Amino acid sequence: MSETLRIGNHVFHSRLFTGTGKYADFPTMKEALLASGSEIVTVAVRRLDLSAKGEESLLHWIPEGMKLLPNTAGCFTADDAIRTCRLARELWGSDLVKLEVLADQKTLLPDVVETLKAAEVLVKEGFTVLPYTTDDAVVARKLEDVGCAAVMPLGAPIGSGLGVRNPYNLMILREQVKVPVLVDAGVGTASDVAIAMELGCDAVLLNTAIACAKEPVRMARAMKAACEAGRDAYLAGRIPKKLYGSASSPIEGTISGAR
Amino acid sequence: MSETLRIGNHVFHSRLFTGTGKYADFPTMKEALLASGSEIVTVAVRRLDLSAKGEESLLHWIPEGMKLLPNTAGCFTADDAIRTCRLARELWGSDLVKLEVLADQKTLLPDVVETLKAAEVLVKEGFTVLPYTTDDAVVARKLEDVGCAAVMPLGAPIGSGLGVRNPYNLMILREQVKVPVLVDAGVGTASDVAIAMELGCDAVLLNTAIACAKEPVRMARAMKAACEAGRDAYLAGRIPKKLYGSASSPIEGTISGAR
Amino acid sequence: MSETLRIGNHVFHSRLFTGTGKYADFPTMKEALLASGSEIVTVAVRRLDLSAKGEESLLHWIPEGMKLLPNTAGCFTADDAIRTCRLARELWGSDLVKLEVLADQKTLLPDVVETLKAAEVLVKEGFTVLPYTTDDAVVARKLEDVGCAAVMPLGAPIGSGLGVRNPYNLMILREQVKVPVLVDAGVGTASDVAIAMELGCDAVLLNTAIACAKEPVRMARAMKAACEAGRDAYLAGRIPKKLYGSASSPIEGTISGAR
Amino acid sequence: MSETLRIGNHVFHSRLFTGTGKYADFPTMKEALLASGSEIVTVAVRRLDLSAKGEESLLHWIPEGMKLLPNTAGCFTADDAIRTCRLARELWGSDLVKLEVLADQKTLLPDVVETLKAAEVLVKEGFTVLPYTTDDAVVARKLEDVGCAAVMPLGAPIGSGLGVRNPYNLMILREQVKVPVLVDAGVGTASDVAIAMELGCDAVLLNTAIACAKEPVRMARAMKAACEAGRDAYLAGRIPKKLYGSASSPIEGTISGAR
Repeated sequence: MSETLRIGNHVFHSRLFTGTGKYADFPTMKEALLASGSEIVTVAVRRLDLSAKGEESLLHWIPEGMKLLPNTAGCFTADDAIRTCRLARELWGSDLVKLEVLADQKTLLPDVVETLKAAEVLVKEGFTVLPYTTDDAVVARKLEDVGCAAVMPLGAPIGSGLGVRNPYNLMILREQVKVPVLVDAGVGTASDVAIAMELGCDAVLLNTAIACAKEPVRMARAMKAACEAGRDAYLAGRIPKKLYGSASSPIEGTISGAR
Repeated sequence: MSETLRIGNHVFHSRLFTGTGKYADFPTMKEALLASGSEIVTVAVRRLDLSAKGEESLLHWIPEGMKLLPNTAGCFTADDAIRTCRLARELWGSDLVKLEVLADQKTLLPDVVETLKAAEVLVKEGFTVLPYTTDDAVVARKLEDVGCAAVMPLGAPIGSGLGVRNPYNLMILREQVKVPVLVDAGVGTASDVAIAMELGCDAVLLNTAIACAKEPVRMARAMKAACEAGRDAYLAGRIPKKLYGSASSPIEGTISGAR
Repeated sequence: MSETLRIGNHVFHSRLFTGTGKYADFPTMKEALLASGSEIVTVAVRRLDLSAKGEESLLHWIPEGMKLLPNTAGCFTADDAIRTCRLARELWGSDLVKLEVLADQKTLLPDVVETLKAAEVLVKEGFTVLPYTTDDAVVARKLEDVGCAAVMPLGAPIGSGLGVRNPYNLMILREQVKVPVLVDAGVGTASDVAIAMELGCDAVLLNTAIACAKEPVRMARAMKAACEAGRDAYLAGRIPKKLYGSASSPIEGTISGAR
Repeated sequence: MSETLRIGNHVFHSRLFTGTGKYADFPTMKEALLASGSEIVTVAVRRLDLSAKGEESLLHWIPEGMKLLPNTAGCFTADDAIRTCRLARELWGSDLVKLEVLADQKTLLPDVVETLKAAEVLVKEGFTVLPYTTDDAVVARKLEDVGCAAVMPLGAPIGSGLGVRNPYNLMILREQVKVPVLVDAGVGTASDVAIAMELGCDAVLLNTAIACAKEPVRMARAMKAACEAGRDAYLAGRIPKKLYGSASSPIEGTISGAR
C-alpha cells in the first residue's frame, strides 16, 4: 500500500502508533513493537530513567528506525507539559511531541482547557504538537486553530479497554477538522482499532491493549492487521446497513461506521 | 500461523469463507477471492448455469485450489434442500455442503425447523453438513446432535450489513456446542469480522460485504486482515474493560467481546 | 387511556404482565403486583404447592381481580408442557396458558421445536396459547400459523437482566406476525420495558426485575410507568435520529427504536 | 413521591425540564407543557419577541405556576451570553439562567471554553447558573468549581434525537461532581429519558423530542412517565446483568445502566 500519512513534516506508512508503558519486560516490549509494524513509539519523558545505561534503559529496546514520540504523561498543568516538551527537545532534538495534560490520577481524562493553553505556547515555540483530547469536535477545532499538526481524541479513558464509546462524536470530529485525527486511548482489542479506522480516522495510538494482553506479541500482530483492515475497509466503501438484505432502502447509510 | 481449522475431514488455514453472488463481473470476483486468502468458496447450486461453458461459467473463475462449498440457496423446504445437495454430490463428488433452508424471500431468515429436518437426512446420507441457522444456541445444539460438522449462525440477516447484532447469543452458542462455529451472514465491514472472531467463533463466511463494496478487491483484503486480527486478538487474551484505567475492578470481564 | 389489548377473548388495559417467582415473601409480592398496575399474573403450575392453605398458599396473595396466567415453567418437553396445561385447566377452568418449554436448566432458553409441537396440540384442545419463544420471526410466524393467540419472544435470557439485546430482530418479528407480541424475559430495568414498547410490541412480561430489585415495590411502580411511557412514545411518533440537529437528512429513520 | 430536587434556592418535585422551541403553535405547546408535569420551562431570551402582546406572546402561553428558565440560545461567545443573562434578569428579576454558548450553527455543540468563562462571570454577578456542556467530567468539575449550581451535559447533540450516546461518560461525570446533573439535549424518545435517570442523573431537559413528535401532547405524557420510571428504577436498585439467569456471577454489575 503506497498510501501515506503525513503529520507536519513527518511521513508514515503504518497507521498504528504504539506506546512503551506497562510491559512486563523490555524484551517483550521490543518484540511487540516489531510485531506491530509501528513506525513511531511514544515515551513518557517524565517516567524515563535518564540515568539508566545500556540494557537498563528503555531507549535501548526501541527497535532501530522507529521514530520517538516524547509525551507529557504525568503532567497535570499546561506549564508542566510545556517544560517537559522543552526537555524532550533538548534530549532528542525532535520537534514532535505528544501533548498530554491530564486532569487527575483517577480518571486519567484530559484537561482540555490546560491542553489548549499548552498547545498554543508549544506551537509558537516551533513544536509539531499532537494533543491528546476528548472526542469534543469543538475543542478539536480549537486545537487545530492554534496550529496543532493533528488531534488525538480518546475512544474511551486511558487503560479502560472500552473501545470507541461514541462513534458519533468521532464522526462529527472527523468532519470538523482538516488535520489528521488519531484515536488515542481506550482500545481494548483488535476490532476497536478497525472501528476507529472505519470511521475515517487517520491512525490509532494504543499501549495498554498490547502491553497488558496475555500474549503481547500476538496482540501486537492483531492490532497491525486490524489497523490495515479498518483502513482498507474505509477506503473500499462498505455496503449500507439494512434491516434485511432484500429491503430497498438503507437504514443507517450516512453513519455507516457507527453502531 | 500454523493453527488450523478442521471441519469434518477438511482442514483449513484461512478462517474466512467466501461466496460468489452479486459480483459485478467474474474477473472482479476472481480477483477478490484471491485477495481474501480464502480456501473455500460457496456456490449456489440452483443459481448455477450448468450449460455455461468456459469463461461464461462461474466455475471457470474460481481460483485454482479453492475448495467448492455447494449451498442450497433458493431452497425453502427440507426436501428441496436435500435434493439440491444430492445434485451437488453428483456434480462434484463432494460431501461438503452448506445447508440453507430459508423461510421466505423477504427476510431471507433461516427456517430452523426445516433446516433441522434436512440436516438429519443429509447427515445420514453421508454429507458433511454445514447448516445456516439463527443465533439460537438450542437449535445449534440440536444441529450438532443430529451430526452436523459445524454450525453457521447468522450475525444478522443475509445482506443486511448489520454485523454481529447479538454478541451475547453468539457467546452462549459458542459455549453450548463443541463443533466449529462459523458466523454466516450479516457482515458489513471489516470490524464485524474481527468481532465475530474475538467472540471465539472459528470462522466467518461472507459474500455481499465484499461483492457489493465500492472496491471489492480492497474490501476482500480488509476482510482477510480483519479475520486474522480477530483470531489473533482472541488467542492473545484481551485486557478487561474498566470504567477508567485506574479502576481496580473490571466491569465486563466475562463478556469481553460483547458490546 | 381507553386503548385496550385483546388476546383471544381476553381484554387488558394494562400492558404489563407480571410473575410470582423469586419474591422474598408473599406480602412483598402482593404489594409489588398492586404497584405494577398489572391485570394478569403468571404462576408456575409445577412450582405451586397445591396442598398449601390460606396464607401459606401463593394464590392467597394474588390481588383480587387479577387474572391468573398458568405457565409451564419447569417443563423440558412438549408432553410435559401439555400435561401441565391440562392440569391448569382442571384446577382453574381457564383456557389461557403461557407455554414455556425450556431446553435446559442452565441457559433457560426456549426449545422452539418442542414449543411448536406443544402449541399445536394445545390450540387444538381449545387453549388460548401464549408461547415463550426466541426473537426468531420465522418461528413466531409458525406459532401464529398453528393458532397461538400471541407470541412472547425473549428480550434476553430469563433472569439475565440484559434488556432487549436485539431490537432489529424484534422489529422484524413485529412486522412479520399479526397476533400481539409480548416481550417476555430479559428485562432488567425500566428503560428496557420502554424500549420494548417503543419497538411496537404490545406488552411486556417480567418477573425477576421486580422481584429481585432492592426495592421491589418501587421497581414495580417504575415498570408500570415505563410501560405506559413506552407505549405512549410509540403512538406519539418520535422524531428521527440525526447526527446533529441541523442536519437535513435523518440517519436511522426506519429503525428509530433500535440502538 | 415526596423526594425533591434542589438547585440553588429552587426546589422541584418534577425532574423533567422542558423547552418552548419548535412547537407548531402556542396552544399545543401549552397543552404539552401541562402534560409533561414539568415545573420549569426554558425560554430563549434572544428569540423572544418582546414586543408581542397577549396571545401573540409566547409568555402568555406558559402555564401558570411554571418557573421560567431564561436561556442564552443563539449566543456564540461568553460576552453575548453574559449580556443575555443580564437582560433576562432585568426582564423577569430571576437569578436562574440556563447558560448556553454554542460553537457554531451546524453542530450546535457547546463551546466549553467560552461557557466556562461566562459561567465564572455570571456566578460572581449572583446568578444561579445552569450551564449546558459536553459529557466531559473534567469540564463539569470546572463548572462546579467556579460555582455553577448544576451542570447540564448533553446526551447527544441538540435536536439529534440520538439519546444518551455515551452512558460511560455520564457515569464518570455523575461520580465526579456533587452538584445536580441534568441531561440536556439529545433525547429522542421516552426510553432515552429513563436511561439518563437510571444512570443517576438528577433531571432531564428536553424540547425537540416533544415539540416535533407527531403527537406532542402524548409524547409529553410519555416523557413525564419515563422520567418518573427512570428515577424510581434508579432508586429501587436494579438486578445485575448476567449472560443468563442461572449464572452465578454478574457480568456488568458496576455499570448497570450503561449499554
